[in-house]
Amino acid sequence: MGEFDLIKRYFKRDLVPGATVDLGIGDDCAILSASPGTQSLVSCDMLVEGRHFVSTVAPARLGHKALAVNLSDLAACGATPRAFTLALALPTVDESFLEGFSQGLFALADAHGITLIGGDTTAGPLNICITVIGEVPAGSALLRSGARAGDDLYVSGRLGDARLALEVFRGKLSLPGEQFEQVRLAMECPQPRVDLGQALRGIASSAIDLSDGLIGDLGHLLQASKVGASLALEALPRSPAMADQPLAIQRECMLAGGDDYELLFSAPELARAAVQRAALASATPVTRIGSIDQAFGLRLLDGQGLDLPLTFGGFDHFKS
Amino acid sequence: MGEFDLIKRYFKRDLVPGATVDLGIGDDCAILSASPGTQSLVSCDMLVEGRHFVSTVAPARLGHKALAVNLSDLAACGATPRAFTLALALPTVDESFLEGFSQGLFALADAHGITLIGGDTTAGPLNICITVIGEVPAGSALLRSGARAGDDLYVSGRLGDARLALEVFRGKLSLPGEQFEQVRLAMECPQPRVDLGQALRGIASSAIDLSDGLIGDLGHLLQASKVGASLALEALPRSPAMADQPLAIQRECMLAGGDDYELLFSAPELARAAVQRAALASATPVTRIGSIDQAFGLRLLDGQGLDLPLTFGGFDHFKS
Repeated sequence: MGEFDLIKRYFKRDLVPGATVDLGIGDDCAILSASPGTQSLVSCDMLVEGRHFVSTVAPARLGHKALAVNLSDLAACGATPRAFTLALALPTVDESFLEGFSQGLFALADAHGITLIGGDTTAGPLNICITVIGEVPAGSALLRSGARAGDDLYVSGRLGDARLALEVFRGKLSLPGEQFEQVRLAMECPQPRVDLGQALRGIASSAIDLSDGLIGDLGHLLQASKVGASLALEALPRSPAMADQPLAIQRECMLAGGDDYELLFSAPELARAAVQRAALASATPVTRIGSIDQAFGLRLLDGQGLDLPLTFGGFDHFKS
Repeated sequence: MGEFDLIKRYFKRDLVPGATVDLGIGDDCAILSASPGTQSLVSCDMLVEGRHFVSTVAPARLGHKALAVNLSDLAACGATPRAFTLALALPTVDESFLEGFSQGLFALADAHGITLIGGDTTAGPLNICITVIGEVPAGSALLRSGARAGDDLYVSGRLGDARLALEVFRGKLSLPGEQFEQVRLAMECPQPRVDLGQALRGIASSAIDLSDGLIGDLGHLLQASKVGASLALEALPRSPAMADQPLAIQRECMLAGGDDYELLFSAPELARAAVQRAALASATPVTRIGSIDQAFGLRLLDGQGLDLPLTFGGFDHFKS
């Protein structure tokens, strides 16, 4: 199968009626019209085998994850997803891979009403690069830079399960079969918190998505907002599988795990009820895990409110 | 050097004042505002070593080319470039590579007043994926589908030099030093015809950029427009280096070469003077090479207007 047949067979679909996409796949560019009074948001993530996924992952889950990690960036800004491009380097034209990959990709795209508008395919070591485009009412994007002293700090979902699964794949620990399947799902099928992000517009003061681990990404938010924070270790949301682990492993996975794709956000204390309504409206669990401090730096508190030593960094693709 | 230092050192720059970019690198998404009355155009190209460039290419030329092939897609639609994202997989953090690559990339970006708004860096086999965003006044994009029987067919610049250089690299032919440097420049430093594309809005009836070879890309244009064409082989613009080659090599390079990044476009016969003015205004050579026919298919004519056999296909990344 050649390049153009491959695109036609697996990736070209009719335009979704009512979308803001004027022209999709098939010309030199795609054409979009912005809705009146909106700004466009753009983000881009590249997935490489061995770095972002293991070679044994089911193609459908890989298709899901490649788009999910990008949608997670739109979610962190409170944006409504509109369209995406896909560039794909493949070692060979493997039809069963493409069948599964495109199925997982489009299932998630359809769930969010988002259109594949263009891209590129080429031969080469397996590499998946997606660029997403979303929109917000002008001026309403959630940014990393809005946290203020006194704000509460929240996180969606649960932390560290993806890292727990990775450690099983690495042979460093083992889990009962059902627990393994559950944390593996967290690693391979993250659910981007798109609905929550949109529900938090006008409520959250800052937000970021967790891709490099809580400590690392919180550090980015604090740096952008020029504030500090206190985190209550016992408040961090964890799965039953996580709760069964020794404390040292729990801490490493939840604080520095990476690949969570949950939203970390701040909101004024007065907005507590509004945050809970946003969580309910988006059917997304949200947990208050700490607060924003005037003083720079990050404090980690145990169950008695005492400081714990902080030794975990975020995930860095060129370090670990 | 870590991922975030790398981005800060080589890729993060202050926003160009006056651009339509509201927020650039540093948050989960970039934020853009569309100019009133415009549509946004999006395109995406991925470059892989051994497929799109040879390992010996100077990093600055690679940085230039990675952006140039994307700008060429915007040019083919007549769009004004606005912003781009860059995703980069690197085997190692090679500072001299990054220094050169970013210098070549930004030199071309600055020449077109376009801003790097975000992206991704990761460890992995060398892979460069750029997504460009441009704009046109609503409804004015040049498409592949507008060619009409009786239209003239034009191409910008010269054809086949990049392929000639590739054949030298492959050891299949040799060129005098000065000629080699000139065709190598065509291969490694293509000049996207952005000014010409914009100047052709309202004049050209259809356009496409030449990346897979004249015959292959003309085929895409004819298919989208549901027409045929006649090409005058002797009219094809060629460099002195090309003119020195045997006819068989000239034909293969000019008709099926690939990597030209010239614009192929059609325009009504009545627009001949307007096409020449657009060429002059954009300081881009333009040559009339044939015409659009009612009947499907492609005819190749020799100097006497006689049909020549047509045996060349376009370049396909999964076939050649």
